[in-house]
Amino acid sequence: MARYAYVNGRYIPHGDAAVHIEDRGYQFADGVYEVVTVLNGRLVDEEGHMKRLERSLKELRIAMPTSAQIISMIARELVAKNGLRNGLVYMQVTRGVAPRNHAFPKDVKPALVMTTKRIAFEGQKKFTQGVPVITVADIRWRRRDIKTTSLLPNCLAKQAAEEAGAYEAWLVEDGCVTEGSSSNAWIITKDNVLVTRAPAHEILNGITRQTILKLAAEEGVTFEERPFTVEEAYNAKEAFVSSATSFVTPVVSIDGRPVGNGGVGTVASKLLEAYQDYAAGRRGQAA
Amino acid sequence: MARYAYVNGRYIPHGDAAVHIEDRGYQFADGVYEVVTVLNGRLVDEEGHMKRLERSLKELRIAMPTSAQIISMIARELVAKNGLRNGLVYMQVTRGVAPRNHAFPKDVKPALVMTTKRIAFEGQKKFTQGVPVITVADIRWRRRDIKTTSLLPNCLAKQAAEEAGAYEAWLVEDGCVTEGSSSNAWIITKDNVLVTRAPAHEILNGITRQTILKLAAEEGVTFEERPFTVEEAYNAKEAFVSSATSFVTPVVSIDGRPVGNGGVGTVASKLLEAYQDYAAGRRGQAA
Repeated sequence: MARYAYVNGRYIPHGDAAVHIEDRGYQFADGVYEVVTVLNGRLVDEEGHMKRLERSLKELRIAMPTSAQIISMIARELVAKNGLRNGLVYMQVTRGVAPRNHAFPKDVKPALVMTTKRIAFEGQKKFTQGVPVITVADIRWRRRDIKTTSLLPNCLAKQAAEEAGAYEAWLVEDGCVTEGSSSNAWIITKDNVLVTRAPAHEILNGITRQTILKLAAEEGVTFEERPFTVEEAYNAKEAFVSSATSFVTPVVSIDGRPVGNGGVGTVASKLLEAYQDYAAGRRGQAA
Repeated sequence: MARYAYVNGRYIPHGDAAVHIEDRGYQFADGVYEVVTVLNGRLVDEEGHMKRLERSLKELRIAMPTSAQIISMIARELVAKNGLRNGLVYMQVTRGVAPRNHAFPKDVKPALVMTTKRIAFEGQKKFTQGVPVITVADIRWRRRDIKTTSLLPNCLAKQAAEEAGAYEAWLVEDGCVTEGSSSNAWIITKDNVLVTRAPAHEILNGITRQTILKLAAEEGVTFEERPFTVEEAYNAKEAFVSSATSFVTPVVSIDGRPVGNGGVGTVASKLLEAYQDYAAGRRGQAA
């Protein structure tokens, strides 16, 4: 089955999918993106992702390339064309193509690109065995609440994690963990309180993060949205990361120190199960 | 005359010059660039730009796409093909095309893209009349010494400048000016000392900046490389910005406050003239 990508109005073979070299996404990282999980052919938290896409663009004063409804339709069409049952839809919107100049070009049409990727979520070891994370300095810019493609520091952090044999790098600023390089960071304290950073300019307000908070409330898990220190994380009972494709991935060590007893924790397990049910549509829309 | 771009081994009509949507430059801002001025068909400070390109890539652990010598040859070939006498060569190197994943892909070939742009430098009003600048918060990441395409905050700053009727935005961190959104920032104190920030992770070490320091020494201008505050800039005798295409552009107001007597200063004029002579090859290689 041929794999298609969507580029500015056309569905074309993935290998031929290209953008002009003066697309501002290429020259300036002047664009935003979303990653939407597809589970059993269903787009998970589609509405939340569309709303965040609109917000990111608004913050950068980029117009929506078309309505959220049509972007959703394109995503579904691409999923269908590619026969995708499980995986993700990646969508990127940039300010468009214009002669290179830092200031915003006038009368430019935003560019919309979409691809899909197949992923077998079922039975992934990371869910059942957990993963190690490391901590690195958070050297990113100050508007991490906007989901931009300005991801170079995130790439450097993820690469450091990979070289350390870890799944993710937790970014540290002023002694506190902000988030992971491509995920939100969570701990469960010895008092059984779920802690994750509150949304502000310092972190991306993950769509999966928001769903997990709703599920935690439904499951009767006490939570606090506040910064936590690296020391607190080292001493946590449990920890996990969340993202569209990580769901709830238990963290079993931080910088080589076992978290809790070094195994997958019960709260993380409970939230993973709740999330998987939710994502598969086996559980009602989170309140 | 057709305008060509260079894309990964081929000279192609500019309008058709494209990169794959999974080029990491597009999805992650995982790349670097250089802008080299062309004056009377001559590439200004070519060696300095090539050295910085190599340094930027090394810092990001991206291999050179080919030798500096061959990149220079391609640049000259493109300048010739496009019949460019005055303007710039823009070159961008990214980590290459690979399935989307934050960590570095293995066995990927770095991508090299080049374009040229025509600019009439002669008699530009900015040189003779000076320009206004504004100050905005510096919200960029912490490795500004690497000339990456992670330029979104720079674009936002430049746009703010444009909307304020200014030529450039000076970025302010901890009360001090780091640099402009696409230039280095300079002041001349009431004691006739030329001041610009020392190269470190906080600023890009401009090639034009380095040349100006050499020219200043030759011209007997006393200088200090150190941070200066916004207050100091307000009270400066003169100010200017420098970049490959701004040369030495006098600054006549900062945040609406006239610099000195509000006209073009004598030190800036002297350095602009020295730089123009140098760039045009009318002056020996700066020592």
